[in-house]
Amino acid sequence: MNDFETAYIIPAEARCSVPYAADTHFPIQNLPFGVGSVDEESTFAASIIGDRVINLQKLQELGLIESDSELDDLEGLALPDLRSIRFQLFELLQKEREVFEAALLPLDDVELLVPIQPRAFVDFYSGINHASNVGKMFRPDQPPLLPNYLHIPIGYNGRASSIYADGTPIYRPSGQTKGPNDELPSFGPTKELDFELEMGFYVGYDTEPGETVPIDQANELILGYVLVNDWSARDMQRWEYQPLGPFLAKSFATSVSSWLVLPDALDPFRVNKKLEPAPLAYLNSPKRSIYDIELEVQIVTEKGGKVVCETNAKHLHWSFDQQLAHQASNGTPLEMGDLYASGTISGTEPGTYGSMLELSWKGTQPVDVGNGETRTFLHDGDTVTMSGYAQGNGYRIGFGSVSGTISSP
Amino acid sequence: MNDFETAYIIPAEARCSVPYAADTHFPIQNLPFGVGSVDEESTFAASIIGDRVINLQKLQELGLIESDSELDDLEGLALPDLRSIRFQLFELLQKEREVFEAALLPLDDVELLVPIQPRAFVDFYSGINHASNVGKMFRPDQPPLLPNYLHIPIGYNGRASSIYADGTPIYRPSGQTKGPNDELPSFGPTKELDFELEMGFYVGYDTEPGETVPIDQANELILGYVLVNDWSARDMQRWEYQPLGPFLAKSFATSVSSWLVLPDALDPFRVNKKLEPAPLAYLNSPKRSIYDIELEVQIVTEKGGKVVCETNAKHLHWSFDQQLAHQASNGTPLEMGDLYASGTISGTEPGTYGSMLELSWKGTQPVDVGNGETRTFLHDGDTVTMSGYAQGNGYRIGFGSVSGTISSP
Repeated sequence: MNDFETAYIIPAEARCSVPYAADTHFPIQNLPFGVGSVDEESTFAASIIGDRVINLQKLQELGLIESDSELDDLEGLALPDLRSIRFQLFELLQKEREVFEAALLPLDDVELLVPIQPRAFVDFYSGINHASNVGKMFRPDQPPLLPNYLHIPIGYNGRASSIYADGTPIYRPSGQTKGPNDELPSFGPTKELDFELEMGFYVGYDTEPGETVPIDQANELILGYVLVNDWSARDMQRWEYQPLGPFLAKSFATSVSSWLVLPDALDPFRVNKKLEPAPLAYLNSPKRSIYDIELEVQIVTEKGGKVVCETNAKHLHWSFDQQLAHQASNGTPLEMGDLYASGTISGTEPGTYGSMLELSWKGTQPVDVGNGETRTFLHDGDTVTMSGYAQGNGYRIGFGSVSGTISSP
Repeated sequence: MNDFETAYIIPAEARCSVPYAADTHFPIQNLPFGVGSVDEESTFAASIIGDRVINLQKLQELGLIESDSELDDLEGLALPDLRSIRFQLFELLQKEREVFEAALLPLDDVELLVPIQPRAFVDFYSGINHASNVGKMFRPDQPPLLPNYLHIPIGYNGRASSIYADGTPIYRPSGQTKGPNDELPSFGPTKELDFELEMGFYVGYDTEPGETVPIDQANELILGYVLVNDWSARDMQRWEYQPLGPFLAKSFATSVSSWLVLPDALDPFRVNKKLEPAPLAYLNSPKRSIYDIELEVQIVTEKGGKVVCETNAKHLHWSFDQQLAHQASNGTPLEMGDLYASGTISGTEPGTYGSMLELSWKGTQPVDVGNGETRTFLHDGDTVTMSGYAQGNGYRIGFGSVSGTISSP
């Protein structure tokens, strides 16, 4: 298994006949997968090199890559299928550019969709600094982490129908809220609209009812990784979340980045971090999928913009393979295309927090967004852009970015 | 709109050329919809009269009913489509039986599937007596209901991949639990496997991002009703549920009854119950969908069996149309085939509670299941069967039943 994986790490010195900038998110070592459209009617499976989208369906038609599946999208493709296509693409991109030029498209000419529209969306809570900050804010008299946190990957089911692509407008939701001094709740637009910086993974495998996933096999069921913005309405969340957890405060919108980055591309950036206390056997992973990925959040207002958060995915406590093994441990069927998000990723100090809730510390400390403006939560017209990459030796494995602009419906 | 609805209530005195027992769940006034199979390969949309399944696809082939859709299942059929088919069926069943005999099948010869395999499953918490009992058990020093309960329909997103048909075996899930005297959690099969008696509805409409559903239109978006058993693992739930709500303790299995009963069939059984305090305007329904439906739960062990719960759907606090208007109020898109469950329905006294948690009062009072046996929670080999009907003047509008037998995987 290790040999198989290693074969798919594309070496740092690999050549490519398509030129790209040194700091591109999409060098030949990445070759992620997405779904594009140029006519708003049909779609094609895609990859990207530098600033050129690669139409994989076109390459298939030209006989330049082979796949058992029709490459109009990514539905039904398992990790071995994507690995095979990626490796064929790697070999093709070393040939003369004219061989495959017909399949290259300028990035700006392509509308990118969600890599896979999931049937199920699960959101974990594996960002330990975020969980700890929430504890400090809302349970100041108690230990910041609840007693279960270090033993069990906490998560909840989200809503899949509101998973949106990069650039999709985000409508400010209405809902019930009740302030501490209000006698009765009222209904109206949220006043505490927030983002949450997360990563996510898609599952590339179906399991049967009652089947579980041994922890040492969980990594092989992960199809790839994306960035996720789990938009949240804090005032709605406070009023609704007891006792069954967040519901409408989260389900109105979740934005997902366009490029599915394969585990193979991230493998060189794995971080070894020992868990204390040691997890139970079903979660004790021999090769945890925790990665050194630089993440940032930028807020752009009508006047200007500023990076408000710089952090790193290595701050996750529970790894993606542990999340997946946990999810499958009760025998519920996994389905190809299930999307799992990590929970909010925050660092340990101000400026590294992955939500406005933390950055403005419950709205008490306005955040500088440049040009003399501040924010506690998001205003209409604000654009939130998340991006991320792993820095290799002379190349970056990037995710591009995921943006959403707030408006009222 | 009212005229339209009224036209589809089939009168109590309506005749039918297929004979059936006076206490059947499926008289001519019902004519619910399901999906059947006789060959494990293909399916057909179905209805039922007495103990005869009606193959609607066959009727369509024979030119005896008309529909724009292919009737191999119920996908894509909206309420007006089902209303039209039901009314055509009503007229057909008054003709000589030989006209449509070719489409009748003995119930035992047909495998019935879930009416619609939902993409999204949401579980509400609208059974006020259940919520109150849970409060008394777990927060004995506080008011039984949390402050939000009477203002907002509490709910959470469930998992759709484990929605199972009547008769599907239920595997006892494993998970993390931690007893009050345990130093550390452990992983293993749940010791507190439970059922929850619920009703559910399917949505027959798609909405756009940002679109909401005015409360006076919510009833028209409900396609029909089913019985739901929201299987639960209480020991897992206690350990995992803070702060984001139930997750793996619920997601391993949810059983749904086979027949989708149309709102039209239940309309005569509407109950008028005024809410106190008055709900906010977006929930203030002119025609709440609360129904007088007798419900019961039977446990059958290897030795015998007993009805352990008799209650009524009128105990729901929030009605189905209020649940739907609430769900849509934040602008998340509704999707045709979404399934919404009500929350556990309990009456106000022992013997009317809709879960073992309440019937055994947290496991402290063993429940008589006949033949000298008792249960606090469910054992392997136990079968839980839920059934329900509304009693009309000389006829019943029934749901049939939904069963599941516990085993270890």
